[in-house]
Formats: sequence, structure tokens, C-alpha cells
Amino acid sequence: MCVDWCIREEGVDEKKIEFLGNKMCIGNGYFGYRGTLEEYGKDQLAACTVSEIFDDNGNGWREPVNVPNGLYTWAEYAGEKLTVLDAQAESHVQELYIDTGTHRRETVFAAGDGSRIKVESERFASLSDLHMLVMRCQVSADRDLELRVCTGIDDDIWNINGNHFAETEIQEKDGVDGIVCRTIQDGRSVAVAAKICITAGASVTDKKQDVTVIHASLKKDVPFVMEKYTAICKETDCQDVWESAVCCCMESAERGFEFLKEEQRRLWGERYRRLGIEIKGDEEAQQAVLYSAYLLYSSAPAHTDRVAIPARGLSGQVYKGAMFWDTEIYMLPMFAFCDPAIARNLVMYRVRNLEGAREKAAEYGYRGAFYPWESQENGKDGCTLYNLTDIFTGRKIRTYFRDKQIHISADVAYGLWKYMEVTGDKEILLEGAAEVILECARFFYSYAYYKKDKERFEFLDVTGADEYHERVNNDAYTNYMIRLTAKAALDVLDLLKRAYPDRYEELMAEIDYRDEEEHIRDLYENIYLPEPGAGLVIEQFDGYLKGEDLSLEELYSRIIKPNEYLGSPTGLTVNTQIIKQADVVLLMSLLGDAFTEKVKEKNWEYYEPRTEHGSSLSTCIYALLAAQVGKTEWAYKYLMKAAKIDLTGDYKLYLGDLYIGGTHPAANGGTWMVVVQGFAGLDVKDGGIRIDPHLPDKWEELKFCFGYAGSRYRAAVRRREIEIRCESPESAELKVTCRGKEYLCTPDESLKITY
Amino acid sequence: MCVDWCIREEGVDEKKIEFLGNKMCIGNGYFGYRGTLEEYGKDQLAACTVSEIFDDNGNGWREPVNVPNGLYTWAEYAGEKLTVLDAQAESHVQELYIDTGTHRRETVFAAGDGSRIKVESERFASLSDLHMLVMRCQVSADRDLELRVCTGIDDDIWNINGNHFAETEIQEKDGVDGIVCRTIQDGRSVAVAAKICITAGASVTDKKQDVTVIHASLKKDVPFVMEKYTAICKETDCQDVWESAVCCCMESAERGFEFLKEEQRRLWGERYRRLGIEIKGDEEAQQAVLYSAYLLYSSAPAHTDRVAIPARGLSGQVYKGAMFWDTEIYMLPMFAFCDPAIARNLVMYRVRNLEGAREKAAEYGYRGAFYPWESQENGKDGCTLYNLTDIFTGRKIRTYFRDKQIHISADVAYGLWKYMEVTGDKEILLEGAAEVILECARFFYSYAYYKKDKERFEFLDVTGADEYHERVNNDAYTNYMIRLTAKAALDVLDLLKRAYPDRYEELMAEIDYRDEEEHIRDLYENIYLPEPGAGLVIEQFDGYLKGEDLSLEELYSRIIKPNEYLGSPTGLTVNTQIIKQADVVLLMSLLGDAFTEKVKEKNWEYYEPRTEHGSSLSTCIYALLAAQVGKTEWAYKYLMKAAKIDLTGDYKLYLGDLYIGGTHPAANGGTWMVVVQGFAGLDVKDGGIRIDPHLPDKWEELKFCFGYAGSRYRAAVRRREIEIRCESPESAELKVTCRGKEYLCTPDESLKITY
Repeated sequence: MCVDWCIREEGVDEKKIEFLGNKMCIGNGYFGYRGTLEEYGKDQLAACTVSEIFDDNGNGWREPVNVPNGLYTWAEYAGEKLTVLDAQAESHVQELYIDTGTHRRETVFAAGDGSRIKVESERFASLSDLHMLVMRCQVSADRDLELRVCTGIDDDIWNINGNHFAETEIQEKDGVDGIVCRTIQDGRSVAVAAKICITAGASVTDKKQDVTVIHASLKKDVPFVMEKYTAICKETDCQDVWESAVCCCMESAERGFEFLKEEQRRLWGERYRRLGIEIKGDEEAQQAVLYSAYLLYSSAPAHTDRVAIPARGLSGQVYKGAMFWDTEIYMLPMFAFCDPAIARNLVMYRVRNLEGAREKAAEYGYRGAFYPWESQENGKDGCTLYNLTDIFTGRKIRTYFRDKQIHISADVAYGLWKYMEVTGDKEILLEGAAEVILECARFFYSYAYYKKDKERFEFLDVTGADEYHERVNNDAYTNYMIRLTAKAALDVLDLLKRAYPDRYEELMAEIDYRDEEEHIRDLYENIYLPEPGAGLVIEQFDGYLKGEDLSLEELYSRIIKPNEYLGSPTGLTVNTQIIKQADVVLLMSLLGDAFTEKVKEKNWEYYEPRTEHGSSLSTCIYALLAAQVGKTEWAYKYLMKAAKIDLTGDYKLYLGDLYIGGTHPAANGGTWMVVVQGFAGLDVKDGGIRIDPHLPDKWEELKFCFGYAGSRYRAAVRRREIEIRCESPESAELKVTCRGKEYLCTPDESLKITY
Repeated sequence: MCVDWCIREEGVDEKKIEFLGNKMCIGNGYFGYRGTLEEYGKDQLAACTVSEIFDDNGNGWREPVNVPNGLYTWAEYAGEKLTVLDAQAESHVQELYIDTGTHRRETVFAAGDGSRIKVESERFASLSDLHMLVMRCQVSADRDLELRVCTGIDDDIWNINGNHFAETEIQEKDGVDGIVCRTIQDGRSVAVAAKICITAGASVTDKKQDVTVIHASLKKDVPFVMEKYTAICKETDCQDVWESAVCCCMESAERGFEFLKEEQRRLWGERYRRLGIEIKGDEEAQQAVLYSAYLLYSSAPAHTDRVAIPARGLSGQVYKGAMFWDTEIYMLPMFAFCDPAIARNLVMYRVRNLEGAREKAAEYGYRGAFYPWESQENGKDGCTLYNLTDIFTGRKIRTYFRDKQIHISADVAYGLWKYMEVTGDKEILLEGAAEVILECARFFYSYAYYKKDKERFEFLDVTGADEYHERVNNDAYTNYMIRLTAKAALDVLDLLKRAYPDRYEELMAEIDYRDEEEHIRDLYENIYLPEPGAGLVIEQFDGYLKGEDLSLEELYSRIIKPNEYLGSPTGLTVNTQIIKQADVVLLMSLLGDAFTEKVKEKNWEYYEPRTEHGSSLSTCIYALLAAQVGKTEWAYKYLMKAAKIDLTGDYKLYLGDLYIGGTHPAANGGTWMVVVQGFAGLDVKDGGIRIDPHLPDKWEELKFCFGYAGSRYRAAVRRREIEIRCESPESAELKVTCRGKEYLCTPDESLKITY
């Protein structure tokens, strides 16, 4: 396989600093470090964002905490700072090697005296020790000279809502410097410690106000080399954060940079092997797809189920560092099929937070579980009631994301159910997943209204996936997903009764559910599902088709201010048919079997020109359904948009006056979905899998790996031929459906299907 | 009785022109003529607004038509126009005599040569011939001089949305000049004709471009006198509008100004006698209350049931000349108790328009009758979907007045039922009123949602009386009024079954209602009625009490632009507890018996400081409930605000950028309600009346007349004593309840009650 693992940017461009901070981000699920340069400070949005530690300092909303910047480093020569901010760079390159998760920079400065000084660095967020942020810096010159390298832990750090630490305490032990901080709201401790090792080049070291100053005597073309082992330890998994941090630093320093980097290659390599994606004939797509997977993995909690993946990964604090419904709908599928341990963490995160969802339901006067729209580590909804500011009046806008996007509970139940279907891990039901699904169904029953004259349950005053239209009735996506939740709940009850009758009895008593089964069945049987109408289009919600039907161009021509919010309550799209993102199309891409090919095609064709793609959740889903219905060239176009979103920076930076930049894990996950679930057409079906390929013209072959019910498989899809090989010995036979025909894949030999 | 019948304004003030146009308005239910001077044109908003003729010229919305101005007249001396717009007035007075419905002006101009010229006029909208607008003009000088009096029919007229006539045709016959016009939308004809009679002063007449120019030779202190008989004839009641107009002019000219004015005195006198309101000890209140009644009568359709009373009477085109719910709730009571023939017209207007209400219900996917929010002569809803403009962006605001104020159908049913209770006119049921009530109830059943887990019907996504909070759930006013509608429907069915079994059978088949009875009973028995909660307050709608609780001062301090709209979707009140107008308090003032005295008091106290009184429908209702619970000084304060609203001009002129000036018939009707239903405490009760006085301190005695079940009564309420006398011979005994005790009033002797 020929893959270009390197993402490369040349030259210095101040306007790109924020964008590269996202694009060149590194992370290991424990923390993320933005793709900023070592000399950058808070004005350049340098940030090391940690998972699991959130704080509300009263200045806005509760957000994840950025910790002091342990990489803070720059060189000085002849009184001049050799940074891209202060000096002219003769050449500058910034690279991200996704095969090792390593960020690299190389800058040549031309000093006033004609000497050329090269500053290089490499860094990675260690996968073998999640606390470690490891860096190697190198400075060399084209002549003998003396210079200074300054390095420290910068605690004057960027936070959207300002400082989050009530106390910070400077520490030193055994040559390790550090800072221990405690958050304002919950008094959570986090330590950042750094050990500096000078591995080449003569030097003398002293300290100036917490900055270590290294006086280096360079010989022509002989580099000065420094390694810096920065540890980040949080109270959530360390008893004494400072002691742990010191320990981590010492250990890593002992293992050394090269050893740790090899570990990176091995561990990242394992991840890519789990995905196994190879696209023959399209290097650009190959790179973009792997880069997407890289970003998604960078934020994935391989080590814990106390958090899932935030909407902007660990690239910063945007969207409150919160977990949304995209975890289940966009990110879970890749992990469910390829890395079930991480998938389990993602779904167990919801199980852990059932109590918060119950509380939220009760807060609104409902029963059951109403999951938070913006879920943080504590199970509470981080979503505020006034999320946006009207840029015309400067007044806060009352938004209903928190109150009305009830589909979140259906998405959670769907995610859990799908996880079980793919992995076969039914044991999770006994670990709390059953309660989650049952309580979500109970919530919907308590939310439902019955229309007596039409003999059906309706769901009123909700917001669907398309957030531009708030507070609508009978949103198609919502209603179908609720029905699926009710079905899942009934299936859970059946399964428990059959397989775990004691647990069933216990649970019914525990959550007082005995009468509920009848309600859920009533809901399941009588919920109103909007059917395809004229032109086979399913109306997105009651009255949607009565909205003004105008082109996107016409809509855009009405914009008065560049960042004005287009959605509810008074944005330009509100009384129109222009939608923010895939909604009915999302429904059809998820519940494909519920709709005919023709219906899917017609709805894609109706909604596509009316979609503003104002969310990074949109293009991947249009690509997915397009691939599923054989519109492969459309699908390819949108796949590339989705896969390259974080490479090109072609996304919205503001919603009204709210900054929403960062990486896009949902689009990253969606990219995998388009490739594997779209172009290869992989899904679970009737106790096996379905595969239904529609390859883009330029793809000669698509290879990928997947798991099903505990076994691992490797598939190759070519024009007219599919090959599937089981890679787990002692697996059961796998039923494979392709184009309506059934096949069996046995562990011993590869299955070849001609289609 | 000592009454000052004259409303008087001295001096010229350009800024008051618009206000006096409303305040000094005359009208006879057939047309209204604004209180503008004869020399005024469209820039001064001179207008003769006719009822029953509406037009949509495509420039905005359908509105009533202003007809050419038959009073257009001015004098000229020495090349100078003697108008308040062109010349300096030495003195100027404008008067409205409400005992005859006569507008008078007297202006003295000082000419350049030192002569003083006095211009006087008197005008009235004839009650004896509704087509006639009658004027007498008089010009005199303090020396002999020659001047010109110019008079014509001004067809360059004010219309909010511009010209409404596709054709105008100048006519002349037998010395009568005129214009015949045809509306654009429906091609409706209307003629304005004028006959000029010079009754004193030598003169020569000629014509210049449709203006009659009279050359008058004045002798010192000997007036020139001209009478002008203007007829307005509309296609709605004249076969040939031009011939009819000529006829009317001739007849009136023959009868003469003085005769017609005597008729005015007699006919207006009859109206005031029907009310019989005398307030001893408070001349200011006496005048304001009679002035309110004058304005209400001026717009009342005594002659037809094809229209009711528009929201701004006949003072202009504001609010599309449409009839709202205030007809039933605010204006009907005075007529039901004092002038049942007019009351019958008002309610029959709804009966006539049942088909339009059925169509509106069907348009929204409901059954039954959903009455128009803004009802014009054709039964269709004149209310547009975008009623306001956002003054920050210049964009139209989607308002939900038309879609969500479903209480309109309950108000219509309530009005009809109340009319029947007061007048005893059950025959109206056979003339279509039964269908109206039944179809309104059917509409509500089809609108209702059943909450299975709470076993109740709820009404979702409605707007109550308080229009600032749109699209709320379980609005208390709405739900209670719906229950009352359901009850009325069940009572109608019982009554028909008992009294008119044939008609009952016929009707059930006609409107396919046989199964509906069970539905309506279900609704009646299981509708959710918000009960008094903490502090005995009834929450205005679900979640209202969670709104920001701030003072009016604080709210006002947030205003950025003077006319910004405070209501939905994003106005300043939306997420607060500040309401536009009486809502729960309205409910309690109407359905008093459903709530205890304590509950009424507590709700008054809770809502009053949170009410912005941004509608003229508000203060009278606060006064009404305050009077009913014995808060008489509060009640008095608000009564005076309501009664004097059109005298002081203390009302909003703009909603956003929408002009809403004019007279306020709802406040006018509400004034009568406060006096008679509030301070005297008159209401129907258990087949008789209830009287429960709470007089303000300064009122020594309050006298008023009322009708009940076809008989007329005269009441005097004094401190501690009530006297009721029947004025209709052969009446049945009247049961009178006062402070829980029952009395009987017989036709023979006056009933005295000590309380």
C-alpha cells in the first residue's frame, strides 16, 4: 500500500495559525495538544486540552480545562527571539506524521549577522503512557555561535471563558519542574511536570522566573538537542497528581525519545491495521480517509468510559468539550466494527450517566431518561438555554437545543443496540445497558401525546437533526428513531425474559417497569410515522413543505451580516425549506431497510439542493446515502468534502458570535461510514452482515477490516468481486448477504462473491 | 344629571393632528369620518372610512376602503388660503358634542390687511339616514370684504396601502356632484355625492377642476352660510349607488340641517337613555364613560349583521378594519344588556361567517369552526402570516396571531351563549347559532391532544390573550374558555333535544354530529384546567412561572429602539413573566364564579405588576376584576385610564413599524363593563341577575339601565342601597341575587336592597 502519511504546510501565514492549530493537532484520548508552535502562547491559541476535567468559573459556561503548556520553548540569538512571531523565517515547514502521531516543525531563521539558524522540533502524545507529551528540540547553525534556548511551563494559557484555576502551585523535585493546579468549581487537581534532558551540544543552564535558560555553544552544523518529557496527571486517575507526574517524567526520560517514538509507530500501526483501509487507485482519498481516522482516534478514550468523544475532539474547548449525539450516530460505527473495546467505552459512558439523564427528564416533568444534549463527565447537561447572541441586537438568543432535541435519547438507545448487534456483546445489558434502553423508551412514552381522532401518538415541539428548524411537530427523524427505541426496549425485555429471567424480575422491580411494557408496546404500535407523500418525499416535519422553497443562492443573497445565525428563532432559514444538515436523509441512511431504493433516491434528490450543509454532520451523510443508492459520483464528491474538512479548513468558524472552530470527529467518523458502510455497503443484517458495494469509478479496489460478533474479518471489494476472509480462528460461520443473495464465510477459506 | 357633553380642544398644534383625527371622530356605523378639519387632505390623514367595503390592491393587505372626502372645503381671501395649514390662526377651537354626535370647529384668521375672518363648521354622521354626512359652514368677517369659499370632493385620499379604486367616474345630476368608484379586488361600487346649499350671504358660483368656487361678498358681521349634504352609498345596500346617492342628497337637503340635527339629538339621546348611566359626584368619570359609549356606538352596525365592530372602530383602516375577539369579549356586553338589537347583529355576524371559519379549520387540517383572527366582511381571515417587521433587520416577522389564537372560537361561542343568557333570545339557535357553538366545540376536539399518562386533554402550541408569549402550552385562559365552549355545546344539544327535537335530528344529520357528542363530553370532562398553585396563582401557561421575573422598569431599560416589538419571537418580554395584557385576570373577570374571591385577589396582585398594558384591552379588565374583588381605588384608577384612553391619547401608536393608532372600541366597551359589571357587579346568574356593588369612594350614586330576558330595568346603586325598577310592563318577576341573598323584582314596584 502506498500511503503518504505526512500532512505538510510550508511558510508562515499568520492568518493560518488558528486553522493549523486544529489541522496539526495531536492527541491520545487523555489529552490533545493543538498544532501550534512551541513559541506560541495564548494569543495563538496554544492549548493542551485535557479530557475529564471541566470547570465553570462563572464567566460563561462549563468547559474542559486547558492545562499549562509544558512545551513552551524558543531560542534567542543576539538579543532576538528566533520565533515565527518575532523573526523573519527564511523557510518554515510544519508537518504531521499520522503514522506515528508526530508533529514536526523546521524553521530556518536568517539572523542579522548573516548566520542561518535552524530550529526543529518533534512532538507526540504518547499512546504507551497516556500522561506523556514528548518533545525533542534541535537547534543548529551554519557557523559557530552562542545562543540561548528558553523553555518553561507557560501557565498564562488560553481558555475561552478565562482562567479555570483557583490555585496554582509551582513545584520542583529531582530535576522535574512543574505546576499543580486546582479547578475553581470542583477543586479538581491537575499537574503538569517537565523534565529536560539535553542530549547533544554543550550548554550551561540557569533559571529566570520559572523559565529554564540554556546557554548553548553551537559548532557549525552540529546541533544542540534537547528532549522534554512533559507529564499531565489528573485527579481522575492519579492519587497524587504531582508525585505521579514526576514519576511519569522520570520513566519516560529513562526510556528515551526514540524508544517512545517506536512505540508510537507500533501502537498507531495497530490502529490502522484494525481499520485495514486500502484504496487502490486514489492516493488522495487514501490519505484523507486515514487522516480522518487519525483525528478520530486521537480523541478516543481508549482508557476510560468516563468520557466519550467531544464534538471538537481534544482540539480545544469548543462546544464545551461536550459529547453530543454524534458520538453514537457518527463515531460509534467505526469503533463498533473495528475497535470494539473503544466502542464499549463510548456506550458505557452513557450507561454511567443514566442518572443524569433521569434527572434531566424529571427536570422537564417527564419520566425515564432524557440524555443531555451536551454531555460532560458528570452526566449533567452542559447545554445552556441561551447559546447564541443575536448579532443585530447583541442580545442572547433563547435556543432549544437542550430542551427539544429529544432524539438524543433515541440516538443513545440506537447506539447501544447497534453496538450489541455488531459486537454480539449482550452482556452489556446486564451492566446497565438494559436500563438505558428501557428508560429512554419510558421517556418517550411520557413525552408522547395521543391524537384521539387520528388514533396515533405524535411527538410535538421537538427539534430534529436539522437544528435550523426548532420546535417542530412530528419530525420524521425523531419519530422513526423513537419507534426504533420502543422496539429495542421490547426486544430487551424479551431477551431478558428468555436469557436472564432472574435479572428481568429484579430489574422490573428495581425500576418499576412492569406496567410500562404495555405502554411501550402501545407507543411502538401506534406512533405516527410520516410516510412518503407526493414525489415520494417524506416531509421533514409537519408543515415543512409549506415553507418557502428557495435556492441557497437566494437565501445567501439575503444575508446582511457575515456571521448571522441562520436558524431559529428568526434566522433566514426558519420559514423556508432550507435545512442545516441531513435529516430525512440521515434517517434513510441509518434505517435503510425501512425504505425502498426509490424512496431513498427521491428524498436525497429533494433534500440535497435544500441543504445548507451548515454542519460538519451533513456532507458525510449525503455521501453515505448517495453511495447506498448508487449515486457514486455524488457520493465521492461529498466523501472528499467530509474526509478533507479538517485538511482544507472548509467549515464554519462562527455560529452568530460563537466560535466553533476545531477538528470534526463526526465528519471523521462519517468518513469511515461512507467508505465502509456506503461504498462497500457493510451493515449488520439478520444475524450476519450485508455487503452491497458501489465503488467510485476511480477506485480499483477497496480493502477494509471489520469485526462481527467477536470475530475479525478482512474484506476486499473490487469491481464485480468481493473477497472476505476471516482472521479469527475458531469463529462461527458468518452469513453474508449481497444483492439479495446469502453466502457463508467460514474461518477456513476466503469467501468470494461475484456481484 | 349634570353632564358636559362637549369635548373641546383649543389652539393649533401640528403634532396633534393625527390624535385629534381619532378623538374627534364621528360615525354612524355605516361610515366614520375622522376628526380632521375640512381643509385637510391625505397628509393630515383626513379619511371617511366605510364599513363593509374592503379591498386588497396587492400593496400589503386587505383593508377597508376610504372613500373620497365630500367635506373638502376651505376659504380664500386676498390670495391666501384661510386654513390652519396655510394661515396664522388667531384662535382655533375644535369641539365634539357627543349628545348629537356633532363635530364643530371655529377658527379666526387675521388677514394681512388687518381684517379678522372667522371660519366655522359643524358636521355629523346622520343616524336618521346612514348614508348622510351633513355639514354646515359659516364664514364671517369684522368688515365688508370679498372672499372665496372652495369646496369639492377630494379623491386624492389617504389609504394605508394606497389607492383602492380601479376606476373613478365623475358624475353630476340635478345640481348634485359626485364620484363613483369601483374597488380593485372585488369591483365593488361606492358613490360619494354632494349637494351644496347656500343659505345665507350673496354669492356667485363657478367650477374649477371639480372644485366649486363660491365668490362671497361679506358684510361686516353677517355670515356667509353654506350647507353641504354628502351622501355615501355602497353597493352592499344600494342597487344603483349613484342614483341612491343623488336621492339621499336631495332628501336631506330638503329636510334641512336643523331638522337633521334635531334628529341626531333625539336618536343619540335614545342611545344614552338605553344606557342610563349617571354617576353622581364625579363629572369627569361621567363624561369619560359617556364619551366611551359614544365612540363605541359610532362604529356599531345598528343596520346590518354583515359586519361587526372593527378593532379601531371606523376611525381609519388600522388592523385591516377587521373584527377581532374583542367584539365578543369587550363590546358585546354593553349591547347585550342595553341594546340587544345591535348585540344580535354582532353575534349574527359570526353566524353568517360560519363557512369561513369551517374553511379556516380545514386549511389547518382541523374539523369544525376556527374563526378568523381578523375577520372582515367575507368571513375570511384577513390576518397575514407576517404581520410585523423587525426594526433591527428590516425583515418581516412570522407572527402566529392567525394560526395559534384558537381562543377566538371559544370567544365566539362564549359571546353567543352570553347573548342568549342575557337576552333570553333562544330563537337565534335556530338561525344558525347552534351550528356555530357545535362547530367551535368540534374544532377544539380536533385540535386537542390527549396525554395518556396524565389522562387529560391538553391544548398545545396556542397563543392566549397575552400576545407577547406566542405558541405556549395549556394557556389557562384558552383551556378554561374551551371547556366553557364544550359545556355550551352540550347544553345546546340538550336544549335542542328538549325544545326543538325535529331541528335537533335535522341538524345532527346536516352537520354529521351524532358521534361528536361523546367526543365533546370526553373533552368537557377531561380537559386539563390549570389550578391555583403556590400563592394561589394560576400559571398563565405551562412554564410561565419559570420565565425571568423582572420589573417593568428593568424591562424598559433594555429597550434599544423606541418602537421595538416586545413580543414573540424574540422581543424583550418573551422569556420573562412580563405580559402584554390581562390574561389570567381576564379569565377570572369573565368566569368569576369558577374562582374564589381570594384566588381572584391573589392573581390580580400577582399579574398586575407584571402587565405591560401594551394593549388597550388590558386596563379595563384589571379595573373590572379589581372592582369585583373590592379593590375599588385601583379599579377606579384603571377605569379612568380605560375610559379616557381616546381622550388623552395615552396609547401605543406603533407595534414595531406598524401604525396602530385610532379609537379603541374594546376599551370603550370595557369601560361600560367596569362601571356596570364591575362597580355595580351586574351579571346574569341562575336564571336572573346578580348585583354586587363596590362603588368608588367619590361616587355617591351610580344609575344605569339594563335589559334581561326582554324586559328593561333601571337600577340605582347607592352606598348600602340598591334600587331596581322594572320599566317594561307585563314582565316576569326578576330574580336578583345580592351578596348571596335572593330577591324578587316585580314589574309593579321598585325593589330596594340594603347591602
